[in-house]
Amino acid sequence: MKYLHTMVRVTDLDASIAFYRDALGLELVTKREVPAGRFTLAFLAAPGDPNAQVELTYNWDPETYTGGRNFGHLAYAVDDIYAACKRLQDHGVTVLRPPRDGRMAFVRSPDNISIELLQAGTALPPMEPWASMPNTGSW
Amino acid sequence: MKYLHTMVRVTDLDASIAFYRDALGLELVTKREVPAGRFTLAFLAAPGDPNAQVELTYNWDPETYTGGRNFGHLAYAVDDIYAACKRLQDHGVTVLRPPRDGRMAFVRSPDNISIELLQAGTALPPMEPWASMPNTGSW
Repeated sequence: MKYLHTMVRVTDLDASIAFYRDALGLELVTKREVPAGRFTLAFLAAPGDPNAQVELTYNWDPETYTGGRNFGHLAYAVDDIYAACKRLQDHGVTVLRPPRDGRMAFVRSPDNISIELLQAGTALPPMEPWASMPNTGSW
Repeated sequence: MKYLHTMVRVTDLDASIAFYRDALGLELVTKREVPAGRFTLAFLAAPGDPNAQVELTYNWDPETYTGGRNFGHLAYAVDDIYAACKRLQDHGVTVLRPPRDGRMAFVRSPDNISIELLQAGTALPPMEPWASMPNTGSW
């Protein structure tokens, strides 16, 4: 038995790939249009960890995607949590829970999927501007 | 960078462990009570794939957990989709989308998290009672 993916629905595939790939740092593994079902699937995964994927489902017929509390978040370990948060910021993503402790941060996808970043190994020493950055909203 | 887990919130930790471990077949990797935060965390993973986990968060103060359409499902590959569905049934879980094609099935957790099972490798030959079993509800 093996974990394959977590599927999330997205309202704008380009914006979501920009978030998950360019801002978060995942790699696009495959992308597939299914005209018969009127949807497009994109699978992304962390570099060097290609088998644990996130599946983006883009339905061609518009739908509104709200969140629910039964789903919490997706979590990834990163080599440098400050560099990861900086890259997210540089792509216009608000770091809702900044890594004040050098260990943990939260952001949200364009469709409000909560993403947790955890520093691999031990926490980094506190560093500005993160150490004094307040929380924004909820995650 | 590395995928760590998908977190879901659960209203009944014992019922959820019974679902994810006993019925679905994951293994309980760790379970940790955090009295200061009034929550308990349980991490489960597929046997032989311990690093891709599902995190169950049980908040001691009751909350109602509804679902949202932005989250789709968790997906696992299984060695024998018929055996996997039979075990789920034997634990009282309804197979909402039976594996009529020997390839794909869906169930839901006690908190309505959708779980996809996919036959590893090629699809199995169609087999009763699955081949003629209708869908139930949505997933």
